[in-house]
Amino acid sequence: MTTHTIPSIATRAPDQLRTVRIQRGFTMHAEGSVLISVGNTQVLCTASVEEKVPPHKKGSGEGWVTAEYGMLPRATNTRGSREAARGKQTGRTQEIQRLIGRSLRAVFDLKKLGERTIHLDCDVIQADGGTRCASITGAYVAAQDAVSWLLARGLIAESPVLHPVAAVSVGIVQGLPVLDLDYAQDSACDTDMNVVMTGAGHYVEVQGTAEGAAFSRAEMDRLLELAEKGIGELIAMQKQSLLI
Amino acid sequence: MTTHTIPSIATRAPDQLRTVRIQRGFTMHAEGSVLISVGNTQVLCTASVEEKVPPHKKGSGEGWVTAEYGMLPRATNTRGSREAARGKQTGRTQEIQRLIGRSLRAVFDLKKLGERTIHLDCDVIQADGGTRCASITGAYVAAQDAVSWLLARGLIAESPVLHPVAAVSVGIVQGLPVLDLDYAQDSACDTDMNVVMTGAGHYVEVQGTAEGAAFSRAEMDRLLELAEKGIGELIAMQKQSLLI
Amino acid sequence: MTTHTIPSIATRAPDQLRTVRIQRGFTMHAEGSVLISVGNTQVLCTASVEEKVPPHKKGSGEGWVTAEYGMLPRATNTRGSREAARGKQTGRTQEIQRLIGRSLRAVFDLKKLGERTIHLDCDVIQADGGTRCASITGAYVAAQDAVSWLLARGLIAESPVLHPVAAVSVGIVQGLPVLDLDYAQDSACDTDMNVVMTGAGHYVEVQGTAEGAAFSRAEMDRLLELAEKGIGELIAMQKQSLLI
Amino acid sequence: MTTHTIPSIATRAPDQLRTVRIQRGFTMHAEGSVLISVGNTQVLCTASVEEKVPPHKKGSGEGWVTAEYGMLPRATNTRGSREAARGKQTGRTQEIQRLIGRSLRAVFDLKKLGERTIHLDCDVIQADGGTRCASITGAYVAAQDAVSWLLARGLIAESPVLHPVAAVSVGIVQGLPVLDLDYAQDSACDTDMNVVMTGAGHYVEVQGTAEGAAFSRAEMDRLLELAEKGIGELIAMQKQSLLI
Amino acid sequence: MTTHTIPSIATRAPDQLRTVRIQRGFTMHAEGSVLISVGNTQVLCTASVEEKVPPHKKGSGEGWVTAEYGMLPRATNTRGSREAARGKQTGRTQEIQRLIGRSLRAVFDLKKLGERTIHLDCDVIQADGGTRCASITGAYVAAQDAVSWLLARGLIAESPVLHPVAAVSVGIVQGLPVLDLDYAQDSACDTDMNVVMTGAGHYVEVQGTAEGAAFSRAEMDRLLELAEKGIGELIAMQKQSLLI
Amino acid sequence: MTTHTIPSIATRAPDQLRTVRIQRGFTMHAEGSVLISVGNTQVLCTASVEEKVPPHKKGSGEGWVTAEYGMLPRATNTRGSREAARGKQTGRTQEIQRLIGRSLRAVFDLKKLGERTIHLDCDVIQADGGTRCASITGAYVAAQDAVSWLLARGLIAESPVLHPVAAVSVGIVQGLPVLDLDYAQDSACDTDMNVVMTGAGHYVEVQGTAEGAAFSRAEMDRLLELAEKGIGELIAMQKQSLLI
Repeated sequence: MTTHTIPSIATRAPDQLRTVRIQRGFTMHAEGSVLISVGNTQVLCTASVEEKVPPHKKGSGEGWVTAEYGMLPRATNTRGSREAARGKQTGRTQEIQRLIGRSLRAVFDLKKLGERTIHLDCDVIQADGGTRCASITGAYVAAQDAVSWLLARGLIAESPVLHPVAAVSVGIVQGLPVLDLDYAQDSACDTDMNVVMTGAGHYVEVQGTAEGAAFSRAEMDRLLELAEKGIGELIAMQKQSLLI
Repeated sequence: MTTHTIPSIATRAPDQLRTVRIQRGFTMHAEGSVLISVGNTQVLCTASVEEKVPPHKKGSGEGWVTAEYGMLPRATNTRGSREAARGKQTGRTQEIQRLIGRSLRAVFDLKKLGERTIHLDCDVIQADGGTRCASITGAYVAAQDAVSWLLARGLIAESPVLHPVAAVSVGIVQGLPVLDLDYAQDSACDTDMNVVMTGAGHYVEVQGTAEGAAFSRAEMDRLLELAEKGIGELIAMQKQSLLI
Repeated sequence: MTTHTIPSIATRAPDQLRTVRIQRGFTMHAEGSVLISVGNTQVLCTASVEEKVPPHKKGSGEGWVTAEYGMLPRATNTRGSREAARGKQTGRTQEIQRLIGRSLRAVFDLKKLGERTIHLDCDVIQADGGTRCASITGAYVAAQDAVSWLLARGLIAESPVLHPVAAVSVGIVQGLPVLDLDYAQDSACDTDMNVVMTGAGHYVEVQGTAEGAAFSRAEMDRLLELAEKGIGELIAMQKQSLLI
Repeated sequence: MTTHTIPSIATRAPDQLRTVRIQRGFTMHAEGSVLISVGNTQVLCTASVEEKVPPHKKGSGEGWVTAEYGMLPRATNTRGSREAARGKQTGRTQEIQRLIGRSLRAVFDLKKLGERTIHLDCDVIQADGGTRCASITGAYVAAQDAVSWLLARGLIAESPVLHPVAAVSVGIVQGLPVLDLDYAQDSACDTDMNVVMTGAGHYVEVQGTAEGAAFSRAEMDRLLELAEKGIGELIAMQKQSLLI
Repeated sequence: MTTHTIPSIATRAPDQLRTVRIQRGFTMHAEGSVLISVGNTQVLCTASVEEKVPPHKKGSGEGWVTAEYGMLPRATNTRGSREAARGKQTGRTQEIQRLIGRSLRAVFDLKKLGERTIHLDCDVIQADGGTRCASITGAYVAAQDAVSWLLARGLIAESPVLHPVAAVSVGIVQGLPVLDLDYAQDSACDTDMNVVMTGAGHYVEVQGTAEGAAFSRAEMDRLLELAEKGIGELIAMQKQSLLI
Repeated sequence: MTTHTIPSIATRAPDQLRTVRIQRGFTMHAEGSVLISVGNTQVLCTASVEEKVPPHKKGSGEGWVTAEYGMLPRATNTRGSREAARGKQTGRTQEIQRLIGRSLRAVFDLKKLGERTIHLDCDVIQADGGTRCASITGAYVAAQDAVSWLLARGLIAESPVLHPVAAVSVGIVQGLPVLDLDYAQDSACDTDMNVVMTGAGHYVEVQGTAEGAAFSRAEMDRLLELAEKGIGELIAMQKQSLLI
């Protein structure tokens, strides 16, 4: 599993994605279970179908799609404290899982889902930058498998999925706009932007942050171009992985 | 205090800010204390100077700028539960206070601040949309007052503030790009974007979310233009309020 | 708002209240919203009507009146930590909100209120001693406004309010019995007593604490006299504020 | 242990204490360990000496006296939930332990105690009204034993205890002022007052609450008289128990 | 109560239990209330009947038996922090109360109990080793009293208790297998084993832990023999205490 | 990864282990990182070296070995709630991680480790019974890799590992003693025993629980024999995996 050939930072072109691998059926219990690798980042995304909805959807005839995100304590270079042991999720964790949930709901017709919930659990096994984007891209594939499971059992008549959705980070590293930042690039960059887009080429989320110097409109335009290119490629890989 | 003339939703132009009022010295204890009103949204922003820094800055010679955000239970139309009573802050609260902190740090030279912290507390007294943006815009003025307090006491020799910073929300309401959404517009919009910019016209944060339909590149461009116009006006008002 | 003429500690007579100001309709969403200022102490008291009751009142035909209390982090001279961020309310906060709730319930006929709850939120914007007493005095006015709102909508036929209720602190400062302690007096006093009385001149709560030397029966008698005088004046101000 | 002859509610005079029993040395590990029984109420009060002080006393040369209070789940007629299992202390518990701590500190010269802490743990084994008052009365005896322990080891040269301190509840039951309410009386009473006094006949705490009808000044005067009588008797019993 | 004659560590034979005392009816409110003393260890075990079951038993026609365990802060030689104040139970506490609950359920026919719960609260008043075993042995007697209470009121027709159950610790202290370890022995031992057995001589729980050197099969066999002897004696004492 | 040939429940002999697979170097950051599969159970065990010790070991010259355990929400057939989101670890989780920690410490000479900590994180990726035993068996291999890392860097001169350690569950299923229960067997069994043994054939932990009928001494003897056989095989596999 750890034998991918990763283009090194030195050799990868600034507009080139890291090597991506999408493994469906990674674990046996979940309705959808995907291990996505983006470079050295590995996230296990499972989709679980539950035949009930949260209180604000009860009786609405609509379903719900929600996400939780976690990182194994030693997914990172230095061991992080276990959130379950500390007794609460960090602000960063909550921010990320809210982002994943919103991104997936953006491509779901909740009426067609019926009064049930799809839980997307994104757990980072190994981190090397871009974990939230890998989570979104992988969760889409897991969600599709859960939808197929529902269709196969006749629980829904029609797919509630409107479009594919995928995400990538872009940033300005030492003055250079770069696609798909790894951890070293992310730590060194001035601006970091996470972009979530649908298969139709529309934005679901754009979250740009100046870590160092604030960024100009021209830089923003270049970053959005890079993101569009990368997301196009990711959506193609999602489609291919779902063919099998 | 509640006698402002607010352009009604019907009469306000899509590229017009709501009435903004910035009151400095609103409470007596804080080094900076600003009540900012943006339409019916009212946020009390205080800046408190503390002569120590969090652990990750100890011994660095650098200071820290951080923010906390809260909403009084009946700031909203329906009473919300009190976070202190529930025993934890929601994900939304944490997301907002992280955004305010990052936005203010982006215009601070932490070295010039010296090893001390400026705490920005943004408490929403009355909510009608745009509370995170009003918090950033008001917190900047409170932070400036705290900096003046430090300069006046000779605790710092030079202002650590690099630029003004302000924020505004923009969105697409019924197909129409609109500046500075109030609660009714925010609830009805397809896309909601919070933009934080410096006085130099650069972006600090761009956070766009498709609540309904995903948005195109052309729509995004129009929203960024509106935001730029609004932030320019807000920064002019900040400057004027600081002259007095 | 900060232009009141406050009798200074030096010039105020020992049996004289600080300047009191009661502003109704301070915020727009709540059924009752009162900013009460007692000297430099400012508390925003809102009354929110909710059409349900806590479990122990379900099916009883009776309503409930309850209170929550909070202090903005920089309401005080030194910034206090935010209870929502720390994840729990202090013992002091819980003690105060229980006192406010009991005091208000003492003047309510819960049967006449019907199966609904009035939530009283008392949030201290600026603190200079006597915040719990100002909260009770202000919450009564906010509660009256909520009752008027219920009567105006025909939700109740008759007011459930039996009496006005107000509170004041008294104490022995450097051997001298003093009415309505500000923060400096409170910090220096030997005995501090909070007294809650109805418009009929009866006691609802008497909470006296010897901070330094224990106090004699004669001192207690003098303190109760001062409190009775002060509460009489506060209830007159409540009535006047409700006339408008 | 449960064979005391308790004057029944019917036969006990309104100004008569319930049977009181004070057993020192009840458990073997603590520096002071007292089981106090007041009628059917039984509280185990232990005093533990710790050779350090809380942060706000560090380097002050002064000690600290503090209290914690708990109730075994089945101390009461209906099993209460265990606070440790629920993960937080109720407001009532916190209010009571703050009262016990303040009451004991009122009779301690913290300078003479030196930089150490006396922890008073008051755990209710069986409840039948008046548990906070029994806790204070018993904790005083346990604290005295801890002081004797410190004196015997030469850790302090002189007793830091200034006066005895004891507490009793009084109330108005069906119009009649009554001393030392048991649970049935407490549940039925209109006014409930807890009084803490020193051996010198001065008040440390007076906490009166109108549960039903508010109370007049004349009623208050009668309650204070009853409390003074009861506390005089309790202090005599404390002294006697310490002779052995 | 503290006048038992305890065989000293020096004089007690390695296969001899410490002095055991079982006092029924120790407190007045609970359906079963037992103070069990095993040497200097004293645990108050109460059994409370509640006419409802936890969610996983609702509608099953079966009842539930569950336990909670606590230790008073100064039950031990050094004061421990109060779990209710710290806001959570330690892992040790949870492990022990799960063990007590499983042990008691093992001798209950939950069908015959009907849809109600018996709560067993085991609170350690004084600790000198073996508190979890004393809790199980005492809780059985308290549970029997609760069952008698149910039978006497006709709430159940037949006892749901299948067997007596008791527990004892055994261990290897300086190479010597010893029955019923006190605190000093427990701290010094290499292996500590808690054994729970029924009156029929069968095992309910065996929990052996090598604190120091791992133990051999021969040592294990000897420890099981000692435990069987001790539990036989404990069950005889339980029976005798229930005769009265 | 999911292509192992697992002996089915029907075909596996009662004294036969499930297929075991031990993959070292599973993730890239940790000093030791092992994915252990036992049948369909998969646990990721990482060992992290930290150059400090918990407070109770400070200045002792000794190190510490500790474990944390978690289960991904969809490791099981039905999605479990995420402990980080619920804000606390269950009693089961705490019991298991204490067991893993004790088991590993039993084969470590903490003096030879020096004042540093080895954290063992055992995260269940897929659960099918026996997760705590697989965690111990896998954590031993990860710990060995961390020790090799320390030796290779000259941070320790000599291995602190005294013996191999491994664990297996045994139980009585429909009257038949069975080795290495899978989830279906575990759910159906009367007695479940987890046994931890060293390479020297000694017991570190024996935890037997009667889920249904209590078990006899003869049954216990048979279960211990099966465990000894299984652990012997597991230790052989650990050794072999460490040769590579």
